[in-house]
Amino acid sequence: MSGNTLGKLFCITNFGESHGPAIGAVVDGCPAGMELTEADIQAELDRRRPGTSRHVTQRQEADQVEILSGVYQGVTTGAPIGLLIRNTDARSKDYSNIEDTFRPGHADYTYWNKYGVRDPRGGGRSSARLTAPTVAGGAIAKKWLARQYGVRVRGYMSQLGPIHIPFESWDEVGNNPFYAPNAGIVAQLEEYMDQLRRDGDSIGARIEVVAEGVPAGWGEPLYDRLDADIAHAMMGLNAVKGVSMGAGFESIAQRGSEHGDEITPEGFASNNAGGVLGGISSSQPITVSLAIKPTSSIRIERRSVDRQGNPVQVQTLGRHDPCVGIRATPIAESLLAIVLMDHALRQRALKGA
Amino acid sequence: MSGNTLGKLFCITNFGESHGPAIGAVVDGCPAGMELTEADIQAELDRRRPGTSRHVTQRQEADQVEILSGVYQGVTTGAPIGLLIRNTDARSKDYSNIEDTFRPGHADYTYWNKYGVRDPRGGGRSSARLTAPTVAGGAIAKKWLARQYGVRVRGYMSQLGPIHIPFESWDEVGNNPFYAPNAGIVAQLEEYMDQLRRDGDSIGARIEVVAEGVPAGWGEPLYDRLDADIAHAMMGLNAVKGVSMGAGFESIAQRGSEHGDEITPEGFASNNAGGVLGGISSSQPITVSLAIKPTSSIRIERRSVDRQGNPVQVQTLGRHDPCVGIRATPIAESLLAIVLMDHALRQRALKGA
Amino acid sequence: MSGNTLGKLFCITNFGESHGPAIGAVVDGCPAGMELTEADIQAELDRRRPGTSRHVTQRQEADQVEILSGVYQGVTTGAPIGLLIRNTDARSKDYSNIEDTFRPGHADYTYWNKYGVRDPRGGGRSSARLTAPTVAGGAIAKKWLARQYGVRVRGYMSQLGPIHIPFESWDEVGNNPFYAPNAGIVAQLEEYMDQLRRDGDSIGARIEVVAEGVPAGWGEPLYDRLDADIAHAMMGLNAVKGVSMGAGFESIAQRGSEHGDEITPEGFASNNAGGVLGGISSSQPITVSLAIKPTSSIRIERRSVDRQGNPVQVQTLGRHDPCVGIRATPIAESLLAIVLMDHALRQRALKGA
Amino acid sequence: MSGNTLGKLFCITNFGESHGPAIGAVVDGCPAGMELTEADIQAELDRRRPGTSRHVTQRQEADQVEILSGVYQGVTTGAPIGLLIRNTDARSKDYSNIEDTFRPGHADYTYWNKYGVRDPRGGGRSSARLTAPTVAGGAIAKKWLARQYGVRVRGYMSQLGPIHIPFESWDEVGNNPFYAPNAGIVAQLEEYMDQLRRDGDSIGARIEVVAEGVPAGWGEPLYDRLDADIAHAMMGLNAVKGVSMGAGFESIAQRGSEHGDEITPEGFASNNAGGVLGGISSSQPITVSLAIKPTSSIRIERRSVDRQGNPVQVQTLGRHDPCVGIRATPIAESLLAIVLMDHALRQRALKGA
Repeated sequence: MSGNTLGKLFCITNFGESHGPAIGAVVDGCPAGMELTEADIQAELDRRRPGTSRHVTQRQEADQVEILSGVYQGVTTGAPIGLLIRNTDARSKDYSNIEDTFRPGHADYTYWNKYGVRDPRGGGRSSARLTAPTVAGGAIAKKWLARQYGVRVRGYMSQLGPIHIPFESWDEVGNNPFYAPNAGIVAQLEEYMDQLRRDGDSIGARIEVVAEGVPAGWGEPLYDRLDADIAHAMMGLNAVKGVSMGAGFESIAQRGSEHGDEITPEGFASNNAGGVLGGISSSQPITVSLAIKPTSSIRIERRSVDRQGNPVQVQTLGRHDPCVGIRATPIAESLLAIVLMDHALRQRALKGA
Repeated sequence: MSGNTLGKLFCITNFGESHGPAIGAVVDGCPAGMELTEADIQAELDRRRPGTSRHVTQRQEADQVEILSGVYQGVTTGAPIGLLIRNTDARSKDYSNIEDTFRPGHADYTYWNKYGVRDPRGGGRSSARLTAPTVAGGAIAKKWLARQYGVRVRGYMSQLGPIHIPFESWDEVGNNPFYAPNAGIVAQLEEYMDQLRRDGDSIGARIEVVAEGVPAGWGEPLYDRLDADIAHAMMGLNAVKGVSMGAGFESIAQRGSEHGDEITPEGFASNNAGGVLGGISSSQPITVSLAIKPTSSIRIERRSVDRQGNPVQVQTLGRHDPCVGIRATPIAESLLAIVLMDHALRQRALKGA
Repeated sequence: MSGNTLGKLFCITNFGESHGPAIGAVVDGCPAGMELTEADIQAELDRRRPGTSRHVTQRQEADQVEILSGVYQGVTTGAPIGLLIRNTDARSKDYSNIEDTFRPGHADYTYWNKYGVRDPRGGGRSSARLTAPTVAGGAIAKKWLARQYGVRVRGYMSQLGPIHIPFESWDEVGNNPFYAPNAGIVAQLEEYMDQLRRDGDSIGARIEVVAEGVPAGWGEPLYDRLDADIAHAMMGLNAVKGVSMGAGFESIAQRGSEHGDEITPEGFASNNAGGVLGGISSSQPITVSLAIKPTSSIRIERRSVDRQGNPVQVQTLGRHDPCVGIRATPIAESLLAIVLMDHALRQRALKGA
Repeated sequence: MSGNTLGKLFCITNFGESHGPAIGAVVDGCPAGMELTEADIQAELDRRRPGTSRHVTQRQEADQVEILSGVYQGVTTGAPIGLLIRNTDARSKDYSNIEDTFRPGHADYTYWNKYGVRDPRGGGRSSARLTAPTVAGGAIAKKWLARQYGVRVRGYMSQLGPIHIPFESWDEVGNNPFYAPNAGIVAQLEEYMDQLRRDGDSIGARIEVVAEGVPAGWGEPLYDRLDADIAHAMMGLNAVKGVSMGAGFESIAQRGSEHGDEITPEGFASNNAGGVLGGISSSQPITVSLAIKPTSSIRIERRSVDRQGNPVQVQTLGRHDPCVGIRATPIAESLLAIVLMDHALRQRALKGA
């Protein structure tokens, strides 16, 4: 329970640093008897992988996963699933000058204050690279949820900086590097990103994640509500500054006669709740929105201090994503899947003989 | 860990129902040696108490707390602190018709689906009345944080439905029933609420919570980041549909050169981060925003179904808050204090000899 | 998780001190739909109650339990069950001299060193009185296990000081104040205790606890084995100095050809394992033995020191049990039931659809 | 919390199977700033390693550990420490006949009943090989305890089957393959083991573990007492059937005037308590005893059943330890160290500013 484990009955313990020898995870609590191969996990890792378009970091990592345990003859045994991903494009350059400086917006300052020591290579433990083990664990949860309950977890980008992206079709999401559900807007997004790169700047984004097929009854109020655990997982993702369910911040200006979803014999008439009532799933789609801040690593010079408190100018020239939101969709899906599987198991404990 | 406990090293276990004999909490992990009296806790409970203005529920509850354990001669002993609040204005009316119907926007439908049985009296376990034990626990955390670190946790309403409330002064917050930091706007808020009550409708609100004085270093990445645990606690509060830190959803349209808070020898030049970088406190004020949905209990008739799936019309005539956001400020403060104290203890474990 | 909660999915959080206003527990994780009344719990509390024979403490406590929550119309709702027991025979005498002295064998010295403050009234938090809430929680677990799985948890005393008590019959256990499964030996036990009281001394005991009907499959290796969690619960009971399963310490001198329980088409041929193999229940009876030390409170003078480190003579004249083992049987049963119910739920999470 | 994690603030998550590609652990909660190299861990692994004498299994494993994360420039960073040990002497023989049979005394039967699938290769997850990651984690705890508090954790064998081993000197423990603290008895032990191997049988053992230098104040009553958590860790070790503290089962026949350790200005006059009073360390040595059953794998034929319930004869011919107790000492030390470090951190959270 020292901070690197997510989930209770189904849980993932994450380890590794951006430029250490390897990253990975131990996934515990997956019931026995599910077919699982490295290919199942690799497919999700490939969706998150860097270097797949010019709009993301150019670091070249195969992100090849090895299953170390928990699977025998292609089937889960109930034992913990050890997952290993070797870092192959770690750069052994000189970090001594970075080590002494706190980059604005980064975790440098807080890691230094908390631990008194820090691995500066590529952000060390605070790097977005550590979302890869999360995605690997999420792949297992996604597969289990689909097979056991027919649950489908998907996501898309709904806003890139100032550009709102109208939802057209799930079919488009996989056809562009932005996870945009709208083919017509892709050219505009590419142009925006190209200009941003020329400016040496970065930008925020908004991501939507949806889980369909979740039965009513998942979530453990008073405190471990389903939406509370979703918020915990999502706000724990690098760069996320806001999380909302259903109508989210729109609810503030809504009246009760507008917000409360009416129920008819055919089902709910709307979904302002985002699929959760009183912290428990209602059988409607679970809908989550994430606000993702712009990447802190930019070419533009910024003011900061060094460890001694002297003023310095900081400019980040290395490989980085100009919009971390672009690769956030598969990660957010993974986090939602992990939380849902955990709550599915918790509800199974309480129900049935 | 069955859902009714919040926190790890400092934790609160909550029990009770709206119209049962009593509600309460066991607060575990408070270090020994702190002076604590019932008056300390009562002061916070009184801020949350119903019936204090015409704009909130008219239920009359003294919310008088009894300390059952953990304090000897006015000082905490390190043993768990048992807190008891008797329900005194529970109504023994006939709930049989409500028991058979699912009120739109309420947890009736999901509790029924989850547990197969439910206490319908005043919302039972899902009632906002269960925030009282949380506030009682929060009072302990607030006192400890103030004494040990000089941390101050405060909150206010920044929006009531369509009305934005400009921040003027902390001094005004305690002078009006809305926790509005602006004396000039109170008349407008009262008028709005009076009209809403005549309409039989309800409205949402936005609450801001701020913790000042938090030292750098609290928070346990990768997953138990300080902001993640704050999001968990806040999204677990009744009616909350969105949580954000610092610039929150504004971050989406910000550029990195605008969002990333520069650091100068005199300190941070801005606080878009909301006091948390990489999941760890930075010593800046922790700033949290909550989106609170409109109350689901309204006089206006709405469509729903009964347990057999037949269509019914539902109208809620009992005592209720037309805007749950009005009483949310002290509760949100309590949740933030509980999370902060938990992380303060976790950081102490890691630091020093 | 601050030490006062036992169990994970089914868990009990304990609060109170020996001479404070009340003791109690919050029992979380009990599935909805089970009939439960105060009488169910009272029956178990009465078995543990002081003052029921001349061989135990003469403190007079009705130990009357009040259910504060979690039950509606006589049926559990899935919400946490708050349990309250008022202390009625607490004595408000002057504890100032005791407060300054550490009684040998007691927790006075360690509580003082740990917390820097301590409630000296009747042992405060370290009193065996705090086993009452555990028994109350155990009553719920026993009932649930019996109804869901036909599990029966029983115990008896197998040794009182130097006197070995041969097992004759479960029927005798309830007929004497020692929980001895042997009518013929009771007179000898009474005589021994009477002499001990005259000597002003105390004595140890050995307790056996057995759970029949546990299906194969409960227990979560690698670390949360069923036997490991049983050992945790039992060693956490006041005065317990040893815990063993099945053949226990006899296993040391056994050969593998003798110890390993053979399996036949009719079932296991012996039960040296005590019902647990590899940390998982095997469907055989779970058999646990406890070594209970003699009570530390005795009339005989003993050497100790005061807070300043000066030598003092300590003699305990108050009400106390001359053999804490006598009342330990129902408590040990309760602990076993709590652990079993927790693991039953954990196994349910992993199994079935 | 799905069973494969030991500890709360300092915790180790264990993964792997006997004949899978690798075993390992993630060690979380180690404070930053401690020097740590693979050699520190290797030294402890080598003490546990198979194949080092003719009295233990002849499996050849280098048990070479790789640190994957959590250490930068030879110093811990506060991030989780990933540890990897490749299996190199796993045999890819045909397990199909073993897969269908339940070996008496082994976990085969219970794993099958629990999971419905099992990895039969060398015992799979239930193999004692999985104590290697525990020892690796224990090495970190031992080093930290020694540096922070001067705590020393050591163990020895006090009984091998019928042979009692009188304690002579800690110096002898490392000089013989039995961890016997007595040079004179080693020839007798060797002779006994040689005869046992000729008989094709196995034998139990008793291990003592001692921690010196633990300050007063570690342990979290009511339930997470230091002795309770020690019992949990020890009973969770393969083949352990009993755990006791201090006088242990001898306490049963002791009188209070004999058992209760008197306190003098020079310190405690005896240590029947085993260093724990009321669940909290007293500053005396922590003394723990373990009863270890004989190995279940023996050459002698034994009765069992196959999956279909038909009677079979089982004989185990592979490589195995004839007395698992022989290699248990370093493992038991590791478990004690892990529990102590966890409680050291928990106490630090509660104490000091």
